[in-house]
Amino acid sequence: MESMMIYMPAVLAIIGLIFMGVKRSWVMKQDAGDGKMKDISSHIYEGALAFLKAEYKLLTFFVIGASIALAAIAYFVPTTHYLIIVAFIFGAFFSALAGNMGMKIATQSNVRTTQAAKTSLPKALQISFGGGTVMGLGVAGLAVLGLTGFFILFFHYFMGGEWTNTQQMTVVLETLAGFSLGAESIALFARVGGGIYTKAADVGADLVGKVEAGIPEDDPRNPATIADNVGDNVGDVAGMGADLFGSYVATVLAAMVLGNYIIEDMGGDITSAGFGGIGPILLPMAIAGAGVIISIIGTLLVRISSNDAKENEVQKALNIGNWSSIALVAVASYFLVTWMLPSEAMKMGFFVGGQEGFEIKRISSLNVFYASLVGIIVGGVISAVTEYYTGLGKKPVLKIVQNSSTGAATNIIAGLSTGMISTFLSILLFAVAIWASYAFAGFYGVALAASAMMATTAMQLAIDAFGPIADNAGGIAEMSEQEPIVRERTDILDSVGNTTAATGKGFAIASAALTSLALFAAYVTFTGIDGINIFKAPVLAMLFVGGMVPVVFSALAMSSVGSAAMQMVREVRRQFKEIPGIMEGTAKPQYDKCVEISTQAALKEMLLPGVITIGFPIVIAFFPKLFGYDNLLIAEMLGGYMAGVTVSGVLWAIFQNNAGGAWDNAKKSFEAGVMINGEMTYKGSDAHKAAVTGDTVGDPFKDTSGPSMNILIKLTCLIGLVIAPILGGHTEGDVPLMDETSQVENMIKKEVKVDMYTKDGVTTAEVAVTTTTGGETKTEDYTFSGTEDEVKEKVEALK
Amino acid sequence: MESMMIYMPAVLAIIGLIFMGVKRSWVMKQDAGDGKMKDISSHIYEGALAFLKAEYKLLTFFVIGASIALAAIAYFVPTTHYLIIVAFIFGAFFSALAGNMGMKIATQSNVRTTQAAKTSLPKALQISFGGGTVMGLGVAGLAVLGLTGFFILFFHYFMGGEWTNTQQMTVVLETLAGFSLGAESIALFARVGGGIYTKAADVGADLVGKVEAGIPEDDPRNPATIADNVGDNVGDVAGMGADLFGSYVATVLAAMVLGNYIIEDMGGDITSAGFGGIGPILLPMAIAGAGVIISIIGTLLVRISSNDAKENEVQKALNIGNWSSIALVAVASYFLVTWMLPSEAMKMGFFVGGQEGFEIKRISSLNVFYASLVGIIVGGVISAVTEYYTGLGKKPVLKIVQNSSTGAATNIIAGLSTGMISTFLSILLFAVAIWASYAFAGFYGVALAASAMMATTAMQLAIDAFGPIADNAGGIAEMSEQEPIVRERTDILDSVGNTTAATGKGFAIASAALTSLALFAAYVTFTGIDGINIFKAPVLAMLFVGGMVPVVFSALAMSSVGSAAMQMVREVRRQFKEIPGIMEGTAKPQYDKCVEISTQAALKEMLLPGVITIGFPIVIAFFPKLFGYDNLLIAEMLGGYMAGVTVSGVLWAIFQNNAGGAWDNAKKSFEAGVMINGEMTYKGSDAHKAAVTGDTVGDPFKDTSGPSMNILIKLTCLIGLVIAPILGGHTEGDVPLMDETSQVENMIKKEVKVDMYTKDGVTTAEVAVTTTTGGETKTEDYTFSGTEDEVKEKVEALK
Repeated sequence: MESMMIYMPAVLAIIGLIFMGVKRSWVMKQDAGDGKMKDISSHIYEGALAFLKAEYKLLTFFVIGASIALAAIAYFVPTTHYLIIVAFIFGAFFSALAGNMGMKIATQSNVRTTQAAKTSLPKALQISFGGGTVMGLGVAGLAVLGLTGFFILFFHYFMGGEWTNTQQMTVVLETLAGFSLGAESIALFARVGGGIYTKAADVGADLVGKVEAGIPEDDPRNPATIADNVGDNVGDVAGMGADLFGSYVATVLAAMVLGNYIIEDMGGDITSAGFGGIGPILLPMAIAGAGVIISIIGTLLVRISSNDAKENEVQKALNIGNWSSIALVAVASYFLVTWMLPSEAMKMGFFVGGQEGFEIKRISSLNVFYASLVGIIVGGVISAVTEYYTGLGKKPVLKIVQNSSTGAATNIIAGLSTGMISTFLSILLFAVAIWASYAFAGFYGVALAASAMMATTAMQLAIDAFGPIADNAGGIAEMSEQEPIVRERTDILDSVGNTTAATGKGFAIASAALTSLALFAAYVTFTGIDGINIFKAPVLAMLFVGGMVPVVFSALAMSSVGSAAMQMVREVRRQFKEIPGIMEGTAKPQYDKCVEISTQAALKEMLLPGVITIGFPIVIAFFPKLFGYDNLLIAEMLGGYMAGVTVSGVLWAIFQNNAGGAWDNAKKSFEAGVMINGEMTYKGSDAHKAAVTGDTVGDPFKDTSGPSMNILIKLTCLIGLVIAPILGGHTEGDVPLMDETSQVENMIKKEVKVDMYTKDGVTTAEVAVTTTTGGETKTEDYTFSGTEDEVKEKVEALK
Repeated sequence: MESMMIYMPAVLAIIGLIFMGVKRSWVMKQDAGDGKMKDISSHIYEGALAFLKAEYKLLTFFVIGASIALAAIAYFVPTTHYLIIVAFIFGAFFSALAGNMGMKIATQSNVRTTQAAKTSLPKALQISFGGGTVMGLGVAGLAVLGLTGFFILFFHYFMGGEWTNTQQMTVVLETLAGFSLGAESIALFARVGGGIYTKAADVGADLVGKVEAGIPEDDPRNPATIADNVGDNVGDVAGMGADLFGSYVATVLAAMVLGNYIIEDMGGDITSAGFGGIGPILLPMAIAGAGVIISIIGTLLVRISSNDAKENEVQKALNIGNWSSIALVAVASYFLVTWMLPSEAMKMGFFVGGQEGFEIKRISSLNVFYASLVGIIVGGVISAVTEYYTGLGKKPVLKIVQNSSTGAATNIIAGLSTGMISTFLSILLFAVAIWASYAFAGFYGVALAASAMMATTAMQLAIDAFGPIADNAGGIAEMSEQEPIVRERTDILDSVGNTTAATGKGFAIASAALTSLALFAAYVTFTGIDGINIFKAPVLAMLFVGGMVPVVFSALAMSSVGSAAMQMVREVRRQFKEIPGIMEGTAKPQYDKCVEISTQAALKEMLLPGVITIGFPIVIAFFPKLFGYDNLLIAEMLGGYMAGVTVSGVLWAIFQNNAGGAWDNAKKSFEAGVMINGEMTYKGSDAHKAAVTGDTVGDPFKDTSGPSMNILIKLTCLIGLVIAPILGGHTEGDVPLMDETSQVENMIKKEVKVDMYTKDGVTTAEVAVTTTTGGETKTEDYTFSGTEDEVKEKVEALK
């Protein structure tokens, strides 16, 4: 059993994918409705495919370019193998495949949901959530399968399938980093490009349709309406999916890298502990694999029975599934951690105190479980905090509603400050998460916290993707002019979907932040620097630059939406003018033209942010060499940059997402009517108009620039990790791999001889500390005197 | 001469204050106009006094509380002396005094400017700029006088007026830090409270006056109009003055602290180099003193001759004065640096490379000059960048104007992205400044860069304070119903004042950022930690928390403006309803009620931000002790927090100031008319209304939360510096002061014995390194072998 554990996660992933296939064919078997519905749905489907096709074309060029860059790294850096390119291409391919499957099922389940809603709300939920489940399992299954598959491959290729030493495992994991980099690169395209796409279409459709022409949302006469519906899928389904796919892979990878260093800290070999001696490396994969199966169980729990169910019952059904799967992950983690980690207390290199450098602490496997529990809990609480700040009927949103009564300006100020204030609790929670999981089990603990949190990814995505499917279903009901009851039922699902979208974003941010921290820790360990000292001026300078990048990135993404939306507005105006009969419904608008504009704009506008994301770390890694800076200092500078991007990126992600979410729900509050200064106020009032302005500002915040932050911080840290070997201490000189020793290992090898005696009440200790580093021997002699306790304490400190 | 240099800066400051007195009496002798003008002006004057009085009352409580806290620190920490309380109280008093004088002269010169504008524009400029000069010289003169006066006092009290050793100088400078802390605490009240005051009054007056009642700005029938005019003085004059007073003092102090460590790095004594052995400590004071005199010269160059001068001529006159004084500071710095620093190359402890810790480098005095040149240049360029992003007729503002045509939402998005994009160049400039000034002369170089930049503070403030005086003069002309030509002339001055206000804000941010860096460096050196390693999880957690605080602080400040403005609105509505004849101009509004509301709101609302600013560093310093964390780790955590606050604070300062400034000028662009989509568009158009919305959002950005960031980052770093001795390595145990040794000193004292021999082509070196720390001796023996070059290199590395 133990020796087979390496194959276990892959097997679980395949089971997940099989279940996905079953679910998919069930969804596809459902009635896809009548002529007009089918017609509209196929427009959306084709629009989505058109976007995917254009995206893949651009991606092909990108992947070729990146592969050449990776080949250069592999050529110059002895510890980087050419196989990293293969891993990279497959990472990109798997992520794209997952996105493709998700988009397809989403654009197929929407119309089936509409059809089901004609007769039954429970059935409509089952189909829309079924579509989400297919998406979630596709992403999670492919992520786990790809990562574990390549790990097995590289483990056999580089190490013959047996533990040799940590250095060779480093080569395995470094090559595996290519898979993660590939996945995250696709996420850049999907999340940023998708974010621009969806908002350009949305804003463009609204500005001309609702405001100028005075036709309702989702009206088939509006040429941009199909693009708008495609956008929901491109942004919320494919974008979110690629984002979480990337997080999932990167977290597990980072935990594996740090697991390898645990083995190193324990003396370089724990084969006696079972699992082929790689228990700490397998553990994160095992948790991820278990998460796939647990998510399946979770999705099975989501169901309602009554046709008259309201929002809160639907929400409750989702919550039961969600919380059950989270609880099951906690239980599974407990068993996996205690089973797979060595039973003796593990040794881990820790930073303690002020200047003393590393200390080796003993960590029991239970501590590692506590660390993963921290991740699970923080993930849940951060989602709850997000819901509080953006939820309908909660205090922050009500305050924005009140402030809408004095105009757009006060609405904007209230929304901005809500987003800003919401960083308080979220960041404190992060700080506690970092602190606690590190205190329990070092950076391995931080990485496992992230892994445990990400284990329910399939379930999270199912809940997330269900929202846009229901939204689309409502759009189709509207466009195909169904009975009002159909729209009412899809509206119930849509409304719940809006809440889950907000919490899903909280989950995505939390996962991105913890992933980045884990990658950051892996980076530092990879490069062999003993920390990142921001008191060094060049490092501090890079911390500033890193802090600036998310802000500029957000600005670029926001302006992209603006200019793309303007193009859309012009195209819709042109069609209204040039196509006779379009407003009477006798002529069909050219939907594909609008889809084309959104697609092209999205792909064009994401280039500059992409270049910034990828360019800065590379410039920082190479530019200072011109000034003769040494590699270790450059590694610290790059680390400072990564920290700056992460801290600032997480802040701006929370700020923008929550401000955007709060504005959105403030606007929605007017639909049911709100009490302002003692008067019920509804849609169409001046206050509502002010709230619409706020929502328009919030749209790019919450759907474009905000979510892009996740990709920015993860990709930055991943690029750092891939560059790490170039800068790392272990590439210097031509020492063969096997002779390399890390700092932590040195510390373990040190020998301390103590000669202590007491005379006239004064205790004196003579201590000799001998350390052997490579070919060099160093002996330090210390003499202490004082009271016995004092001396003992000092001697103890040396050990 | 050399031995008298310690008194020189104080003498120069007194000369500055005398010149200020002369200028003041000249301004006061000018004609203060007729009955109605005098009446309005005395309302403003009394409103300002009412604010000051209320502020002082609150301040008294604060100063008493803070003094008790400082007494506690002095009691527990052996190296902190009780005199720090005296220094603190005087720091607060001097800053308040400077603010008081500035407010008084500003509220006296406004009416005289109006009177002069009846006949002569050059005279009006002379008076308004004269008022600004009084303000500038008062602030700079009192800052230099207070700081140098206390230095002389403490130098004599603790050291008998003669150099003893760096440890005793540390006590002198640590006590002096109290003065800086006092000054910065007042800045918190003046800048944050003032910022809330001015915007609450402004927004309140506009909402009811302009929008509801339809009366023009500055109409005497509006009860809030006096509060609005008082606000200009409270925020832009007293707030800005206290901000720069604090920066001025803190920069010089930080440079002095770092100068002390240069002496330490040079062996603990450079009395042979003249200046009583404290040249590197005196130098920043000398530059500050010279700056006062240079600023006087600069102000004398500001004059126009023609009564028909336009904006650009007035701007040119100010530019001539400004650039001349900056150039003169560069020249003076050259002579002072080369004269006052030791002629031999100085030794400085530098961080170099990766893990090797400190290295002693040799720095010539010319390098120090280059570092100060970096500060001067960066200060200028950052002002220029600010002007580009916020200036009328520049591309970013024109883009916002264009985006106003599609409504408030697109205007807001454009404004936000302008502010965000503007961080790019500014932060890169900072990064270069840190990097370059450090490369030239270590952190002493960074501090001197800040000092040199701040030397022209008096001139900068003169230019800054002139704006609100001219603004007020225009308001008085309006309210007292003068001929249109009067308002035209004051409008020319006002318009130039708006530009200088934007660049002045850029200068204030740059100065706050560099000041914080200098304080940060002083903090690290004070605590004796050898760096701040953000790879330690608790330090990283604090970096996150630090990054969050400016965001939450900004949100609190913004919401404060909102709620205070609402109170104002209610009061104005009440007066309009309850006072008969108010709209006909037959009854007088109760101006003082509105002044009272703004005053109370400002002081009440600034409490929470104030508590956050002061509370967080204190909690971080003491809370982890409960978990048994050692002092050095806590010092690093606090350092991480400070870095987080600084990086994020600078970013948010730039973002908010520039977004606010750009929105303001986008709105102003409509006054002269702008071309949108080929059509001239003016005030009153829909696009203009959208721009007004943007400006309302921008108001708290640029006048409340944005400028508050300066205080937040400086005060955070100052509190860190005052707490430093509690955490510093040198407070541990009860070693008497004279025996203490710092890490750098140890390095110098270490003895290296080398025994090298070559046999069979292999060179072997046996090296013994002996270091003596306090009562402990430590010997390290190394054995190296290899080629001769290799071994030599390794031995060299040990030295």
